[in-house]
Amino acid sequence: MIVTCVYVRVKPGLAGEFIEASTENHRNSIAEKGNLRFDFCQQADDRESFLIYEAYESDEAAAAHKSTAHYLKWRDTVKDMMAEPRKGVKYNIIQPEKF
Amino acid sequence: MIVTCVYVRVKPGLAGEFIEASTENHRNSIAEKGNLRFDFCQQADDRESFLIYEAYESDEAAAAHKSTAHYLKWRDTVKDMMAEPRKGVKYNIIQPEKF
Repeated sequence: MIVTCVYVRVKPGLAGEFIEASTENHRNSIAEKGNLRFDFCQQADDRESFLIYEAYESDEAAAAHKSTAHYLKWRDTVKDMMAEPRKGVKYNIIQPEKF
Repeated sequence: MIVTCVYVRVKPGLAGEFIEASTENHRNSIAEKGNLRFDFCQQADDRESFLIYEAYESDEAAAAHKSTAHYLKWRDTVKDMMAEPRKGVKYNIIQPEKF
């Protein structure tokens, strides 16, 4: 089971638009086969910084996410909202061992 | 609902000991009232770097975690394993709205 933490900082004033697009992406992503978590979080002390915490059963399921229509729509919608390139960090889940 | 991401880097050779202590802490933490997630992750490209992704129903529940016997035991056990001070980043959860 793997996790990708996606860190995003949006341009000033665009947090609301980003939340709207990312909430739609969240709703579709949690319905994907192999998705375990797709939490969408806003940094407490910086409302233009966000974390998407994505957990999937396998590398294959995580890769499949990136070819879904909702991911591609999100990617294109938020592209020009970013204040800097978003950053992804990959993890292996040690615990929980079962979901 | 709030999240704390705790980032830890341990000294070379101590990943195994850290995993053992943190697995015990995970098992006790998920049984706490108000705990929503307590995922323990190892960075894919750096096996001495870890993320603990902790979600709680409220600030009060998150604060209560820090006074539990298992947290205090973990804190003392891992104290000298750290290569650098651990870092915590707080988030508010936008989605999911319900757990």
